[in-house]
Amino acid sequence: MSKPIITRAQFPFWHTIEVRWGDMDAMGHVNNARYFTYCEAARIALLRQLDIRGRAEGSAFGPTLVATSCEYKREVRYPATLDVGVRVTKLTERSFAMEYALFFHGTEEVAAVASSVNAWVDYTVKKAVPLPDELREVLSRYQ
Amino acid sequence: MSKPIITRAQFPFWHTIEVRWGDMDAMGHVNNARYFTYCEAARIALLRQLDIRGRAEGSAFGPTLVATSCEYKREVRYPATLDVGVRVTKLTERSFAMEYALFFHGTEEVAAVASSVNAWVDYTVKKAVPLPDELREVLSRYQ
Amino acid sequence: MSKPIITRAQFPFWHTIEVRWGDMDAMGHVNNARYFTYCEAARIALLRQLDIRGRAEGSAFGPTLVATSCEYKREVRYPATLDVGVRVTKLTERSFAMEYALFFHGTEEVAAVASSVNAWVDYTVKKAVPLPDELREVLSRYQ
Amino acid sequence: MSKPIITRAQFPFWHTIEVRWGDMDAMGHVNNARYFTYCEAARIALLRQLDIRGRAEGSAFGPTLVATSCEYKREVRYPATLDVGVRVTKLTERSFAMEYALFFHGTEEVAAVASSVNAWVDYTVKKAVPLPDELREVLSRYQ
Repeated sequence: MSKPIITRAQFPFWHTIEVRWGDMDAMGHVNNARYFTYCEAARIALLRQLDIRGRAEGSAFGPTLVATSCEYKREVRYPATLDVGVRVTKLTERSFAMEYALFFHGTEEVAAVASSVNAWVDYTVKKAVPLPDELREVLSRYQ
Repeated sequence: MSKPIITRAQFPFWHTIEVRWGDMDAMGHVNNARYFTYCEAARIALLRQLDIRGRAEGSAFGPTLVATSCEYKREVRYPATLDVGVRVTKLTERSFAMEYALFFHGTEEVAAVASSVNAWVDYTVKKAVPLPDELREVLSRYQ
Repeated sequence: MSKPIITRAQFPFWHTIEVRWGDMDAMGHVNNARYFTYCEAARIALLRQLDIRGRAEGSAFGPTLVATSCEYKREVRYPATLDVGVRVTKLTERSFAMEYALFFHGTEEVAAVASSVNAWVDYTVKKAVPLPDELREVLSRYQ
Repeated sequence: MSKPIITRAQFPFWHTIEVRWGDMDAMGHVNNARYFTYCEAARIALLRQLDIRGRAEGSAFGPTLVATSCEYKREVRYPATLDVGVRVTKLTERSFAMEYALFFHGTEEVAAVASSVNAWVDYTVKKAVPLPDELREVLSRYQ
């Protein structure tokens, strides 16, 4: 009944986040919304490595977020560095899902686990379209 | 098999969000993380109405977020006003869950649906403790 | 030698800001950077009223910030509403300067006074160009 | 009459900022308010090195911002790394001023120059008080 243990070995891609003092809120810890900014940074770093660009960079086709979630396990306070592990968890005809684990730098302690689903979108008509085969192939390597 | 339709009548508490130009990101729409800031604003407005304060205001006991999620239905671009409906969806011994629907102001069009789970925490020892009966009672009225 | 008193009567344009809980930082008050987001919201509201759009909306010419400043007079804590008064303080050949006064809602108490300088830019070549006469005329009415 | 050239050699303290994708706004570049978050990160890194803590960390005395400013020289777009140089420019009886230069990583190109003034405050009574001698001495080494 216990949850599966999350380990670094499960994640093929890593992005480091330096927590900024201003990421904290009036509770004196990193604000809940900021975790999504951290995951976004990690996701975009991975997509760029795969040469996948979005509407902000002039692409006609690209990813659009349709869902996100986060489970907060440990408070994070400045100063802190987080190692964000990313893996692809699901590939459908028109979308890909990712999971993120935010580890305290250099430890096995998990601050949060998060997820995202991106549709693959034709920005001109704002409709989800099938993932190109080469993209599906390249993403599958990060499962 | 279709998803249940979300209507305003399902939500007992409302909070209005004026979208700021700076809420948009390089995609030219409201950034995914900002929706959690909007829900946080609505949640705290409700909690304050119920006279529930958190650590930031010196309380020894109070809510701490343990999970959040959001489904993005429609892009939001400045200028826009959102009506955020809030309802309590679950009360457990030591936590309460809420659902949020972000409607475009004065319409039945839903921009996003989100959720949160808060543990009830003894901030001194950083442990979840049972929800006080009167809090459980008052939250149950928002179901 | 005392500073001139700032009054509401000095400002021809007004924009209301609802402070969000998430605007506060670990000091338990509105973060210093957020004041610039508030002024940006007020500035863009005024520019839109004057039908001036920027690069984000597809204009070939428009404003670009070259300088900002803020003097913090009073702490702002959630919950709070701020009335941001805006006036044009200077028009040069290729730029316009604005001053902002952030009043606590419905009072004469000033939370902060801020300023901005915008160059008028040809976005294609990223160079400042002369302000069109009609824009200069319309901005001069807000002095 | 030309402005003095800003060089790295003028700055005794350095802090590195990794620009996050989410720091960009709808103009497709780093938002003007974010520069103050970058300077805040650099300032707090320096203050921590000097063992100066603020109200967020339980100190009874500490710094409070009274003024900030920024001149934007070059657009910054993700991906980018900024090297923020910091120096103390003024020490008064009850305040200290700092200047920041945001260089593109590893270059002499300046993206922005910023400043801040902090009062030294007795947080209990919310009044500026004289800078302790040892603090004055330690800050003077960063001039």
